[in-house]
Amino acid sequence: MHQPDFKPKDAAYAARVRDSFALQGAMATLGASLGDIAPGRVVIELPWAAGLTQQHGFLHAGMVATALDSACGYAGFTLMPEGAGVLTIEFKINLLAPAKGQSFRMVGQVIKPGRTITVTEGRAYAIDDGREKLIATLGATLMTITGRDDVKN
Amino acid sequence: MHQPDFKPKDAAYAARVRDSFALQGAMATLGASLGDIAPGRVVIELPWAAGLTQQHGFLHAGMVATALDSACGYAGFTLMPEGAGVLTIEFKINLLAPAKGQSFRMVGQVIKPGRTITVTEGRAYAIDDGREKLIATLGATLMTITGRDDVKN
Amino acid sequence: MHQPDFKPKDAAYAARVRDSFALQGAMATLGASLGDIAPGRVVIELPWAAGLTQQHGFLHAGMVATALDSACGYAGFTLMPEGAGVLTIEFKINLLAPAKGQSFRMVGQVIKPGRTITVTEGRAYAIDDGREKLIATLGATLMTITGRDDVKN
Amino acid sequence: MHQPDFKPKDAAYAARVRDSFALQGAMATLGASLGDIAPGRVVIELPWAAGLTQQHGFLHAGMVATALDSACGYAGFTLMPEGAGVLTIEFKINLLAPAKGQSFRMVGQVIKPGRTITVTEGRAYAIDDGREKLIATLGATLMTITGRDDVKN
Repeated sequence: MHQPDFKPKDAAYAARVRDSFALQGAMATLGASLGDIAPGRVVIELPWAAGLTQQHGFLHAGMVATALDSACGYAGFTLMPEGAGVLTIEFKINLLAPAKGQSFRMVGQVIKPGRTITVTEGRAYAIDDGREKLIATLGATLMTITGRDDVKN
Repeated sequence: MHQPDFKPKDAAYAARVRDSFALQGAMATLGASLGDIAPGRVVIELPWAAGLTQQHGFLHAGMVATALDSACGYAGFTLMPEGAGVLTIEFKINLLAPAKGQSFRMVGQVIKPGRTITVTEGRAYAIDDGREKLIATLGATLMTITGRDDVKN
Repeated sequence: MHQPDFKPKDAAYAARVRDSFALQGAMATLGASLGDIAPGRVVIELPWAAGLTQQHGFLHAGMVATALDSACGYAGFTLMPEGAGVLTIEFKINLLAPAKGQSFRMVGQVIKPGRTITVTEGRAYAIDDGREKLIATLGATLMTITGRDDVKN
Repeated sequence: MHQPDFKPKDAAYAARVRDSFALQGAMATLGASLGDIAPGRVVIELPWAAGLTQQHGFLHAGMVATALDSACGYAGFTLMPEGAGVLTIEFKINLLAPAKGQSFRMVGQVIKPGRTITVTEGRAYAIDDGREKLIATLGATLMTITGRDDVKN
């Protein structure tokens, strides 16, 4: 993946990500926690749990997508100005292999930031018996929302 | 959406969908239940819950995707032969409006069934104060898996 | 496909579509012509040609996408205000069957118009020995551009 | 982008790519030529031409997609066995910037090869006054077709 050197507009970007992440009920349900937070790049980690599975006991594709979408959304959010909110317009996920493992690492990366539209990519890795394997790629298009009190982080 | 008249290969298709759905831990976590099950079309319903939200209190895009992916996967599954398993290869979701409402209805529909590859479409509707609104569309590509004991429903 | 009743902001929407279409060198290369133009819905037609093929003699997926993207883009454009320009942010295409036929009909339809973002869907049909067959579906996200002289139609 | 070390199944992979490319009428229409061909990675180059443009004089998104889809398809094809054919099941393209330039370079890369399904990614670069700029990313899912005389390269 592309990893250009991005300059955040708001020095407090990491704190803003942590505050917003803490508001996502879905992240608590996933048992997810924030890993590295860098300008244009955010990592989210979670353990396997029975409540996240599809019928074969693997992580449900939608749950992989939920964590990847948050990783990508927050990757974009690190580059947005103070007071802005982030919304996902669309994303696409490719499931490369069954999400089989004891824990999972989701990496969200900005490909192209923009005033209105930001394009991101995510990679999901399963850690299975100590081996890390790429299991999914996701591309998400984000929109920066400004001047709306109800969409502000 | 396209609604052609599909003939199921296995008359017990609805029972197979119910059995598989009951194995998805993710559906229990979503509080989701099966609605109509017809050849090539499956409906999933769920109420709003704090554990499914993003930072603004709307349903997380990934949770919408989780329910829509299951609706589409099972729509495809209704047309697959006995003993087959279904896997999602990829899906793309467009979020048309915030997932704001008291309950949600996800409709999965087969567009083109195939021996190996099945293409489906989903629509997510939010029911907010009694009004139903289209909030997301999803397109999913499914693969029929045969002859594998670990991927069999 | 969804076919809501849309009100154009500019009564001259069809003329604007025709003027813009005439500027697309790609449409001339495709031998494409405009069919019906309605608010939120545009049809583009083209004959098979050797210069549009992939290695098996079918229409190249990218050429199908080119015509569908224009159909969707102009469908969105019919609902945009005078002086606005339209840009495709992203699209996804599913190829349901080989693009085999003597002529092709592309239908672009707005699903959700918006001030900044418009979501559209397209259907590609091949006409082969007089029978019409759905060969591809496309979903495109459009952006309305205003106040830029270089992107104005 | 991921660039693992892939082993081709057929030592004559580059010749097979060249032979198939020569059969694509669409590549001649684009004025496209093959650049590097490596296991799992193929480059396609083309100059700007009026016949490839959208209404603002930039390369049409569909034409960018046509070249990227071929680059990705042939990247996957390098890893397929002799006698196999390649079909694109679906692709998604994100347009990051207007396709403005004198020439264009499309890089297709395999992310995950498979017996039936291969997942690829493409990057499109515009060369404008000697500066190269990333203008689009594409993700394509390919299918390996075997045992069919009409889809054999």
